Formats: sequence, C-alpha cells, structure tokens
Amino acid sequence: MKTYNVALVGASGAVGAELISILEEISFPVGRFLPLVSARSAGQKIHAFSQEYTLQETTPESFKDIDIAFFSAGSKVSEQLAPLAAKAGAVVIDNTSFFRLEEGVPLVVPEVNPQDLTHCPKNILANPNCSTIQMVQVLNPLHQAFGIVRVDVSTYQAASGAGKRGLEELKAQMAGSTYAQVFPHPLALNVIPQIDVFMDHGYTKEELKMVRETHKIMHADFAISATCVRVPVLRSHSESISIRFKTPVSAKKAHGVLKNAPNIVLVDDPANKLYPMPITATSTDQTFVGRVRGDLFDPHTLHLWCVADQLRVGAATNAVRIANEWIKTH
Amino acid sequence: MKTYNVALVGASGAVGAELISILEEISFPVGRFLPLVSARSAGQKIHAFSQEYTLQETTPESFKDIDIAFFSAGSKVSEQLAPLAAKAGAVVIDNTSFFRLEEGVPLVVPEVNPQDLTHCPKNILANPNCSTIQMVQVLNPLHQAFGIVRVDVSTYQAASGAGKRGLEELKAQMAGSTYAQVFPHPLALNVIPQIDVFMDHGYTKEELKMVRETHKIMHADFAISATCVRVPVLRSHSESISIRFKTPVSAKKAHGVLKNAPNIVLVDDPANKLYPMPITATSTDQTFVGRVRGDLFDPHTLHLWCVADQLRVGAATNAVRIANEWIKTH
Repeated sequence: MKTYNVALVGASGAVGAELISILEEISFPVGRFLPLVSARSAGQKIHAFSQEYTLQETTPESFKDIDIAFFSAGSKVSEQLAPLAAKAGAVVIDNTSFFRLEEGVPLVVPEVNPQDLTHCPKNILANPNCSTIQMVQVLNPLHQAFGIVRVDVSTYQAASGAGKRGLEELKAQMAGSTYAQVFPHPLALNVIPQIDVFMDHGYTKEELKMVRETHKIMHADFAISATCVRVPVLRSHSESISIRFKTPVSAKKAHGVLKNAPNIVLVDDPANKLYPMPITATSTDQTFVGRVRGDLFDPHTLHLWCVADQLRVGAATNAVRIANEWIKTH
Repeated sequence: MKTYNVALVGASGAVGAELISILEEISFPVGRFLPLVSARSAGQKIHAFSQEYTLQETTPESFKDIDIAFFSAGSKVSEQLAPLAAKAGAVVIDNTSFFRLEEGVPLVVPEVNPQDLTHCPKNILANPNCSTIQMVQVLNPLHQAFGIVRVDVSTYQAASGAGKRGLEELKAQMAGSTYAQVFPHPLALNVIPQIDVFMDHGYTKEELKMVRETHKIMHADFAISATCVRVPVLRSHSESISIRFKTPVSAKKAHGVLKNAPNIVLVDDPANKLYPMPITATSTDQTFVGRVRGDLFDPHTLHLWCVADQLRVGAATNAVRIANEWIKTH
C-alpha cells in the first residue's frame, strides 16, 4: 500500500491536534510524519500514530521528501512557507485564509466542488473558513435542486475559531476571570457581534469570507449577507440561515434533498425537542441540520439551522477529506 | 400630588423585582403598595419604597381600591385573576402572553403605539413579549421613514426570559451542573434553537409571537420570519435583524432616523470595537443598536444588531412606561 510523508505545520494548535486524531482514526496511510511548530514550541513532545515525536521548528528546508503538507499556523506562516513547501514537491493543504481567494488555488469542500482539485497549478489547495464549510455543505444540494437566489445567515460561533488560546480564554472566564485578550470583549455570559477585523462597508472580514468563499466554492453569485457573532460555546458553530429560491420549495421537499446529501445529518424532530446543538455536534464529522421550515409569507423562502464541530468539520476533517480526494484524483 | 394604589402580582419573581426597582428609581407616585404572590411564597418579607412588606397571597379579593395592577406571574394567574382585578376597578398591565392578541386589549410599546391606550374597554393592557418590544422600538422609526417590506430576525436570547428559575439554572450550569429542567437542554456552553413550545409549521410560540405581536403593535402586515435561540447569557437579548424596505436606504440614512428615535441608543463605531452587547446593555432602560450596514447586493436591504435588557426594556420598564402613559391619557 502506498504511503505518504505528511508534514503538519501548527502541530501544537487546536486544529493540529484534531488533524492528528482524524488521521489516526481513519488510518490514513502516513509514511513519515513530521510535526512542525514555531521556534517557541520546538522541542516539546507529542504522542501520535503510536509513537512519540519531538516537535520541530518549521524552516524552508522542512519540506524535503514531504508528499502532503498541512498548514495550520496562521496566515503569515502560510504566506512565507507554503510556496516553498509546494516548490519542494509537497501538495499544500492550507487552513488559513491567505491563499483562499487567489487565482489558481482551488478552495475545496469535497462534498461540493471536488472537481476543482484537478486544476492546481501552484500545488496549493485552500481549506475554506469554518463557518463557510458547514454552510456550503447545506446550501449546495439545495442550490442544485432548487436554485438559490439569496441567503441571509446569522452565526453563533464557538471560541475554538480563535484557536487554543480562544478556548483557554473562555474556560478562564467561565471560572470567573474577566480578562479578555484573544476576544475583543469578555465572552462568558456575553455574545460579541465581531469576528476578525472590520473591513469596508461595516462588515467584518469573517462576514465577507462567508460571501466570497461561498461564491468561489459553489461557482455561484447569488446574494449573501452574513452577521457573524461569537457566543460562549467551546467548539461547534451554529448558523441560522434563511434561503430564497427561484421556485417555491416546501420544508418536505428540502428534507428529501438534505436526507441524501453527503455528510449531512437531518435532526429535525421538534416534537421530541430534537434539533442540532453545539453540545451534540461536538467531536463529530457531520454537519447537522434541523428547524427546516417554510416561510410564513413567501413560498420561495425556507429557514433552517445548522451546527458542526468547528475544529473538525470546519477545519481538520475538511482538510483530511481534501487530502483523500487529492490522493484519489492524482 | 395624586398617588396610585399599586398591586404587583408576581412580586417575588425576576420581573417583579425589576418592577419595584424601576418604580423606586423614577419615584412613581405609589400610594398603597400591595406585593402579591402565590400561596407558596406568601409570608416572605421584601424591602421596597423604604419599608418592609409581607408578600400576600393573590386572591380574587386582593384588588379592592387598587388603581394599577401589574401582573407578572404566568399566563394561568393572569387568565384567572386579571379580569377580576379589572372588574374591581384597577387597570391591569399584564406581562404574560394570555391577553396580548385579544380584541379590545391594547398591546402597547409606548414609543410605538401610545394611541392604542385610548381604546381599552376591558381595563386590561398587555405588555408585549420581550424579544418583540426591543425589535419594534427599532423597526417602527425605520418603518415610518422608509416603509418595511420584510424582516428576518435571528435572536440570541438570555436565560432571564425563563424567569428567576432560568437564571438560577444557568448559574448552576456555569458552576458545573448539567441538570436542565427549566430549559429543554443544558444551556451553559451551548445554544438552544427552541424557546417556548413548538406550534404549527415548525415554528415555536416565541417565533410566532414576534410575528403576530409586531403586526398588532405596528398596525402593519409586512412579512416577518423569526428564529429564536437561547444563548448562555444572563439577562440581555440580542437580535440580528435584516430589513427590506420599499425604497433604497443607506446605513447613513438609517443612522439619521435611529439617532432621533425614542429610547434608542446608537452604538455603532466598529473601528473602536463599539457595538451593542449583553454585558453593556444589562441593567439599563435603553435599546442599543449597532452594526447598521447596507446589504452588499440589494440597496433596499439593511442589516443591524440590537440589544436590550430583557427584564427591564423587555418587561418591567415597558410595563412602567405603559403605566405612565396611561396616567397621562386618563
């Protein structure tokens, strides 16, 4: 069986830890494994694939003989080192936003646009933003079936979107601290309508990502508005999504489509208080959809609620799915 | 100076406590004060208006010589006793949902429809649902200026909407308990897309309240969809609102209108990380609006974010404002 030498840049981070777990769980054919970190974390030990590894500093020379390089250490690291890894012959699967909108870099959610992997001139593949991944997994089958005209989404995003430091800050605040450094304000017992920095027109970068990345992944240009909000939840994002279609669509018809959509699990039994929630989605690899209902005034509009684990579905799981798809097609 | 004999049914509850605070703060002209409770809580002492009161059991005879009776003890108590209080000559200001949609019962947000107080044949006035009050305070001035066609709202609602027991349950869960009785699932570190029971078409009662009560208060029939979600916040509700208007409306134009709207405070300075949040709205009597921005695709659509203290603006403050308006007009 063919194996692949895998480098993981950002091996000490929250997404890095999930990535290792997932590669172990699915028995990914790892040959050599190289866990890379910043100079600050180098020398620490981790346990992976039934052995101990010493975390090594990432350098331009790290990527010799590497087949697949996962990058999850921030945009600056990706900007500087991903092209060098790609030049050294590795296919880069980058979890940061740096290359996502770049021409010639496929932005891939394998359930949605696997075909985009075939044109990859830079040897760099981009993993989309977490809140975008779970949304397009839900939107795409509905768009294929009914044609989307407009999407309005309000998010309920977990602390893990800000990495291990975000998780630690929320946990400290839950225990009484009011110190806020990772988040712009205290998050425990609060909600913060700002994720990432503010850009033009009063939108945050996170909100614009949900627009632009969705368009690139789905090869569509329907209207989208996003309001991205941080909530005191550890690691699953929730989204309240309103969708207007070209034709009238009933909740029942949408159920029929979503039931057969890849990696989507319908949890829509309100009578038994069953709907997706962060505490039930956490540590899974599926995107959960519920509260599917027709609009009371417009037969073209549906509303639904979707939840997925941000570190897995929104990051590590999608990265590994990209790797698997890449192996299949190359 | 004329004074008013005031009864408060539900004096031991979370809204009851706020009501007493507000009446004290604004030096409401209270003559006799009668704090009423269920048999279970009767006999307890409270301190109000610089003296000690013994909580008394609510009976049909409680309302003799009462001028104003605030009801905040659940729909069943209001159903049974509010008509008797009204018959005894008191004007009832009811905080429950029982009479809200009844013909001949004004449903009032004084900043929006004070004129409805003039026709009150049953001597019962209804205080709207908490999430509705703060929304119509924001929608009404915009509707008057530009004409609303459609509203899509997703809420981030606090534990206090479920009363003192809801607050206590969330606090216990923050300290590690996973026991959930008031809420349908654990709320700490979670969000729950269910408030109140499920009704027809997959909507909750809370979501339908936001539609029907808004229509009654604003004397309008524009399309509304609501997705009501409980978040682990103590006592301020947040709302992400998308509004489509009859004409194109810029964020700047909307700012101009909201700046002059009664009891609205614009907090919209993203560059300085200033926007409304639960922790800053709590214990105030204003509704805070921010993140006002034009849609990226439709010049007729705006998005905004509003936050208000659920126990005050969403309940007690509005009840006292109704009482004040009633005194002014009768």
